[in-house]
Amino acid sequence: MSSSFVLRGDLCYSLDPQTLCAVPDGYLVCVEGRSAGVFAALPERYSALPQLDFRGKLIVPGLVDLHAHAPQYTYRALGMDLELLEWLERHTFPAEARYADLDFAGAAYDRFVEDLRRSPTTRACLFATSHAGATLLLMEKLEESGLVTRVGKVNMDRNCSSAAREADAGASLAETRRWLAGCGSFRRTAPILTPRFIPSCTDELLAGLGELQRETGLPVQSHLSENLDEIAWVKELCPWSAGYADAYDRFGLLGGANCPAIMAHCVHSGPEETALLQARGVWVAHCPESNANIASGVAPVRAFLDGGLRVGLGSDIAGGAQLSLFRAMALAIQVSKLRWRLLDSSLAPLTIPEVFWMGTLGGGSFFGAVGSFAPGYELDALVLDDARLSGPQPHGVEERLEQMVYLAEDRDLLAKFVAGRRLF
Amino acid sequence: MSSSFVLRGDLCYSLDPQTLCAVPDGYLVCVEGRSAGVFAALPERYSALPQLDFRGKLIVPGLVDLHAHAPQYTYRALGMDLELLEWLERHTFPAEARYADLDFAGAAYDRFVEDLRRSPTTRACLFATSHAGATLLLMEKLEESGLVTRVGKVNMDRNCSSAAREADAGASLAETRRWLAGCGSFRRTAPILTPRFIPSCTDELLAGLGELQRETGLPVQSHLSENLDEIAWVKELCPWSAGYADAYDRFGLLGGANCPAIMAHCVHSGPEETALLQARGVWVAHCPESNANIASGVAPVRAFLDGGLRVGLGSDIAGGAQLSLFRAMALAIQVSKLRWRLLDSSLAPLTIPEVFWMGTLGGGSFFGAVGSFAPGYELDALVLDDARLSGPQPHGVEERLEQMVYLAEDRDLLAKFVAGRRLF
Repeated sequence: MSSSFVLRGDLCYSLDPQTLCAVPDGYLVCVEGRSAGVFAALPERYSALPQLDFRGKLIVPGLVDLHAHAPQYTYRALGMDLELLEWLERHTFPAEARYADLDFAGAAYDRFVEDLRRSPTTRACLFATSHAGATLLLMEKLEESGLVTRVGKVNMDRNCSSAAREADAGASLAETRRWLAGCGSFRRTAPILTPRFIPSCTDELLAGLGELQRETGLPVQSHLSENLDEIAWVKELCPWSAGYADAYDRFGLLGGANCPAIMAHCVHSGPEETALLQARGVWVAHCPESNANIASGVAPVRAFLDGGLRVGLGSDIAGGAQLSLFRAMALAIQVSKLRWRLLDSSLAPLTIPEVFWMGTLGGGSFFGAVGSFAPGYELDALVLDDARLSGPQPHGVEERLEQMVYLAEDRDLLAKFVAGRRLF
Repeated sequence: MSSSFVLRGDLCYSLDPQTLCAVPDGYLVCVEGRSAGVFAALPERYSALPQLDFRGKLIVPGLVDLHAHAPQYTYRALGMDLELLEWLERHTFPAEARYADLDFAGAAYDRFVEDLRRSPTTRACLFATSHAGATLLLMEKLEESGLVTRVGKVNMDRNCSSAAREADAGASLAETRRWLAGCGSFRRTAPILTPRFIPSCTDELLAGLGELQRETGLPVQSHLSENLDEIAWVKELCPWSAGYADAYDRFGLLGGANCPAIMAHCVHSGPEETALLQARGVWVAHCPESNANIASGVAPVRAFLDGGLRVGLGSDIAGGAQLSLFRAMALAIQVSKLRWRLLDSSLAPLTIPEVFWMGTLGGGSFFGAVGSFAPGYELDALVLDDARLSGPQPHGVEERLEQMVYLAEDRDLLAKFVAGRRLF
């Protein structure tokens, strides 16, 4: 299909964290894969473009998942009676070790990629495993899916008992270069450097990844301040650091002008760490379901927003069980209310406009001009049929969006566009 | 279809709050609407019964919703940026006032009943509105659906600004008797006395309902200790009471040998109130989503279980947005983990067996021998097709149940039986 066309329907998108823009029965014009704007009446100059009539349907920007582990999809919704460190040893590491087997990896990633394609997510930043081969296989499948993604071969050379651990820093870096050498031919799928987290990376490995980052300019993703035991462990492992974020920063892996970086969780980030994240321009990937499932806590997202941080949402499969970012939005609100009620009434609960912004523009900005229908943005769009939620009381466009946040299922997704290309 | 038959499939049900019983490729025998037991091989004496082959599918007891507001279904997932008392004034009372109009009520209840029929719920205790006519209309539709329910015409004669409020205690009681007089012909749908909550019922109304309870032996449902402002208000309104639960108890509406009673929420019930609930044999309806959505808090369910209380789950539509009790199970675990992490590490998080027990046997016991596949229990069963969740790693029956708790959608529900009758 042409990448220039017009979508007609009930449009809704974020202008900023506090402001939704709703245009009932409006026109969204896509020219060569980018938005040319939203209009109440179709301007004459676009009248020759093919029109897709989705009247009565809700059209919103595609959702952006800033943090998920593709190989963990096979055991989502299982074994969440443990906290982070024990959960990793018991479930994650043994499961990830299996991806050395490309047959297993292919079967597992087929399911993950197909489910992601059918989900409301249009862009994602994903952790793979430590294996170059399986990571490239995942990237091939994602490339074919039409989704736009960043994918990371995971680096981990210490503190892990299973076969998932790499032999040493040298072996991990060599495998990383082998993986990067195979990434050249993708158009929609790009690499991202992925030290698993401080406890599983030696200083030597982190130093090597820092060098590689400066050499390649690649972005970085990792985990930060997720769990209290983890934080205490980092303190032990890095007596030279001023804190968890600083431990990445010393190696040039926490972001900065030439190093776009995503840090997942930040559940226990205090004012100093938050200031450092702000200074480095880090994207925080807020993962509310995971933080509840493995009992990490609730991140102070209100403080991040007030501090001007970049904040997006993550499903964090398989700490999170649900791939849909609509569920992450609802849970982000719900857990912010419990944090407000149980822990700290100085941080007001999140709102629908805020979580919708986080799931679209907030995370989308990591991919450039993504997450909005404003002119110039890449055209990622979801067409949602919410007729099953209708009743005798009519609802406005913003109310229907609110209902989708709490109740949308993949079956409600009628059509999906990524960078102007229709996936279904 | 005959109410004697055999279901073959992967069976899973609760024995007690800590113990799941799983029988892969087993036989569940239904004789005249009740379980005759679960068998690894079909006993010869049942070989003549019709067999339904659900091999490879998961078969679990039907779920029991101990607390939901049918009229609020029209605005589920909307306007949850308020706490309880303001939320009631702004959204609930005006919406419920519309049910004086039977055309509106019919259209709204058609949608609610059809969605409940397609959901995993087989039995429910529902609040209607204060209108006898609309309440009977809801009961007719429920009767037709095949679900087994208790439905309450709501009593409320003070502290509500809208048309939803009844004129006075006398009018409220007269309307209640008019409603009860119309309930005679139902087989699966029975009345339950439903004072809305202490703040909306005068002492005179509560005294009248207490008398009516003793006269009829009907069960009672209401709300208890949901929100801190509400609790403070009850203290003001009932200076003569020793506490919120005691305010019901003085009128004989808190349960006891001849008064089965459900109290929803109990978020802020302390040791004394918990002891009183235990003494009166009250069923606590735990509503985790609602308690998060309107920022009430997290009920100390671990303390209720340890204290030997009867505990079930409620969707609490529309404080809760999700009708599926599988979601209530998942959220019950998630919020118990946040309560443990943020508020009180002395109360251990809930487990899958515990929340599954709450959603089946725990709430089911309100309806008699319901919520189990043990011999003699009424045969409520769900057949779930979880093939979309399968992957290259095989999962056992209990693991598949765990996945359903987090991920089941109505589309996974292949068949549903209530008291031995197949609904679809």
